[in-house]
Amino acid sequence: MKLAAKILDIATRGVLLNRLDARNIGVMNGDRVQLINPKDGMSVTAFVETTSTIAQQGTLGVYRITNERLHVEEGAEIEIREAGRPASLDFIKKKMDGIKLSKEETLTIVKDIVRDEISAAELTAYITASYINPLDMDEIEYLTRAMVETGEQIQFASRPIVDKHSIGGVPGNKITFLVVPIIAASGLKIPKTSSRAITGAGGTADLMEVLSFVEFTSSEVQKMTDKVGGCIVWGGATNIAPADDRIIIQEYPFKIDARGQMLASVMAKKFAVGANLVVIDIPVGQNTKVPNIQEGRKLAREFIELGERLGMKVECALTYGDTPVGHSIGPKLEVMEALMVLEGSPEPNSFVQKSLSIAGIALEMAGKAPRGGGVAMAQEILTSGKALEKMRQIIEIQGGDPNVKSTDIVPGEHQFVVRAPASGYVIEMNNRSLITLARTAGAPQDRGAGILLHAKKGKLVKVGDPLFTIFADRNWRLQNAIEEGRRLMPVLVEGMLLDRIPSVPEM
Amino acid sequence: MKLAAKILDIATRGVLLNRLDARNIGVMNGDRVQLINPKDGMSVTAFVETTSTIAQQGTLGVYRITNERLHVEEGAEIEIREAGRPASLDFIKKKMDGIKLSKEETLTIVKDIVRDEISAAELTAYITASYINPLDMDEIEYLTRAMVETGEQIQFASRPIVDKHSIGGVPGNKITFLVVPIIAASGLKIPKTSSRAITGAGGTADLMEVLSFVEFTSSEVQKMTDKVGGCIVWGGATNIAPADDRIIIQEYPFKIDARGQMLASVMAKKFAVGANLVVIDIPVGQNTKVPNIQEGRKLAREFIELGERLGMKVECALTYGDTPVGHSIGPKLEVMEALMVLEGSPEPNSFVQKSLSIAGIALEMAGKAPRGGGVAMAQEILTSGKALEKMRQIIEIQGGDPNVKSTDIVPGEHQFVVRAPASGYVIEMNNRSLITLARTAGAPQDRGAGILLHAKKGKLVKVGDPLFTIFADRNWRLQNAIEEGRRLMPVLVEGMLLDRIPSVPEM
Repeated sequence: MKLAAKILDIATRGVLLNRLDARNIGVMNGDRVQLINPKDGMSVTAFVETTSTIAQQGTLGVYRITNERLHVEEGAEIEIREAGRPASLDFIKKKMDGIKLSKEETLTIVKDIVRDEISAAELTAYITASYINPLDMDEIEYLTRAMVETGEQIQFASRPIVDKHSIGGVPGNKITFLVVPIIAASGLKIPKTSSRAITGAGGTADLMEVLSFVEFTSSEVQKMTDKVGGCIVWGGATNIAPADDRIIIQEYPFKIDARGQMLASVMAKKFAVGANLVVIDIPVGQNTKVPNIQEGRKLAREFIELGERLGMKVECALTYGDTPVGHSIGPKLEVMEALMVLEGSPEPNSFVQKSLSIAGIALEMAGKAPRGGGVAMAQEILTSGKALEKMRQIIEIQGGDPNVKSTDIVPGEHQFVVRAPASGYVIEMNNRSLITLARTAGAPQDRGAGILLHAKKGKLVKVGDPLFTIFADRNWRLQNAIEEGRRLMPVLVEGMLLDRIPSVPEM
Repeated sequence: MKLAAKILDIATRGVLLNRLDARNIGVMNGDRVQLINPKDGMSVTAFVETTSTIAQQGTLGVYRITNERLHVEEGAEIEIREAGRPASLDFIKKKMDGIKLSKEETLTIVKDIVRDEISAAELTAYITASYINPLDMDEIEYLTRAMVETGEQIQFASRPIVDKHSIGGVPGNKITFLVVPIIAASGLKIPKTSSRAITGAGGTADLMEVLSFVEFTSSEVQKMTDKVGGCIVWGGATNIAPADDRIIIQEYPFKIDARGQMLASVMAKKFAVGANLVVIDIPVGQNTKVPNIQEGRKLAREFIELGERLGMKVECALTYGDTPVGHSIGPKLEVMEALMVLEGSPEPNSFVQKSLSIAGIALEMAGKAPRGGGVAMAQEILTSGKALEKMRQIIEIQGGDPNVKSTDIVPGEHQFVVRAPASGYVIEMNNRSLITLARTAGAPQDRGAGILLHAKKGKLVKVGDPLFTIFADRNWRLQNAIEEGRRLMPVLVEGMLLDRIPSVPEM
């Protein structure tokens, strides 16, 4: 059947069919249809919603995200027909039944994910099945290669190409802002693609956006890296391994991060940017994704094996993940802290030492520094000001102000200082509660929102000393965060009352 | 935040937020919001889609299905806020991790399903997890009770209340049209709720709609049953065990029917209508849901145990499921066949005998007939015309024409006779291919579409004898079905060529 397009400004996928047209085609709400743009033969799958009024008989409402692929203009003709059942659904069913998927089956599923041939619910079934019946290393390799093949890839003229990745879960983990300029200043290339926060208080891409643009195509990533040695961009704009974003969105409600998909996701992005030397930072701790060193070592071996299968050299660093890295959580606060270190501040030590360790491993892997000499070389690049110089070049090539100083960054104007209710040692900092608090204050959407820690675990504080400051761009969010902070108590001081239960008043 | 409602005639769930309002509330596409109608305090959860134009800043687009629960009028004020994460998601995650769910956890999930607190994708995760980590009998009982509690229930003044259910998968299984009038004519009560076809060529509700209305509330079901002893209605309109429909829709893409959910679904509907004597028809065969007698017996024992836990007496009949019941597939054709038998035709034997067996079991369970005397009693009620008389009362009370005769039903005007390509015995009939063919011809939406079988398995046919006729309401659908029929060959005659591969022509 041929219908006239009516573009609907709704930021989702799908088509809106008149009830009578739907009946004639033989489809109902939720059914799958194939749309063809007769001008160029482009074919797109979409799911049907119906109306009696918004789309008149003979017209077809096309939602915006679907039209980003179909590219029809208002009033143009669209061919619509009932779509067949994608083969992916049989393969997903196989995975539900505990059967190992082949390379071709995996590629079919990933293609269908990227082309929106399967619905969010169908994708969730695949994720759930892969979570319960974990992928083996063959399947992880197939998934990695499929994620690479279904997106864009960068081919640099020469190797090595360095990359790093931190498994998430630790707030304030802004080390990319030191590692990338140190590596690039050493003469190596590091085309870093990063994510935006999903559950966190600020992804590296959210942070970098404080300083410059972050949305670039993969060929722009390549050009910028060739020119200044590195960049820090949002991976979501590059169309590199695009299946990954779609998978992560569906994992979010259940806070799962199925190991096979996580390994494939990380390594596909590294492979697709052409990296052959990769350092993986694995934070270990009760409140991270990896609860203990044994689990960390196991995950490290899996990363290394997957790297070998893909022709990449991988080293992993197990890092302490039970408290935030540095003192700041939230986009502007973290960027301020990173710039301060680049400008010469030796503190905070946790942030500086971790960054130098990761950069040092990469320098050793690339043969720039002798085994055991990586940290010293990284330190030299940082202390000499070469890393700051390189960071300025990166900010400039990404369209930001290269002369920006840490003091130019202004965090949220609404602030509240939380003070120690008792004297004693800081005995606990809860990562998840700190992230929740920063998000309640508005991070990462409100760039100035976040938390600045004045005392970290082990420090002796006196009653009334500041423990942390909550920052917010809007006062109502600050008020919400203050209230949430009372409930969560993310920083505990030894001897402080956790709660006080009043005696029942007499009647 | 308060926004003015703009009702959008889109037959789905959700709200359409202006991009700027979404930013202010702090939500993105796909996020969960809570909507409150300030007039009555009604609170509904919905998922966000965004626009820059269709909903102006300050207005909130409300899709139709969401407004069926929220009940706001155009321009009325709606309170909107970011919704919390439902506890169900943690319980679904538990099930993913293979942990048994408690009664309370199950009830929370089912409540959230019915109230649309969780998305289709989240529901799919629950279904997938329950499919891979099967529910044990405790969990099945919890699920059954939760399905009952979250919907309407019928309380009849007296017992027994009889009910029957056929596990699907066999085409032409129209036995309800004999069983219900026979049971009701015996003086027993049988308030039968049925489904519409999802994957089949016609559910019992689709068939009954040829004769009368089928959409009634549960109190109407009760009144009709009290008055004439029985009814045949669409369960989807009654709000009895409403969670079930939502689960089935999500199972459809993967053609799964997780055993625990299936048991709970069937028994919840029986329990909710107040039935205490239940006959379950379990068709067994290669092309049904139960491949062999061992599996059939196992399933029967599970139905019986679940019934005991719920205080219901259950008997199961394993029936032959490898060929269609009777000769007709598709709404009008099946109704014609059923009316012919009620009017006195002794054929088709497969249909009559199966119906009498199931009715006979119910008559014996209720003590109307002595053990072993049920079939004879059912036969007597059918032959005497009492069943026809009762069916006419049921049709009349459901708003149809009580004087309808089998000859009044006119199947699809477009017909094509498929003939035997060779002489021999009919050796195979493929249920799934027959269903696919009937659906291609337009069933169940096109009521006149379907298949009439002239020869069944084991019959000796001569070349050129009619094997089956395809009926369609629209010619283009008939043409599609003829083509599909050539490919599927749903009826095989011994000695018939399955394919002919021509020799490669000389170059």
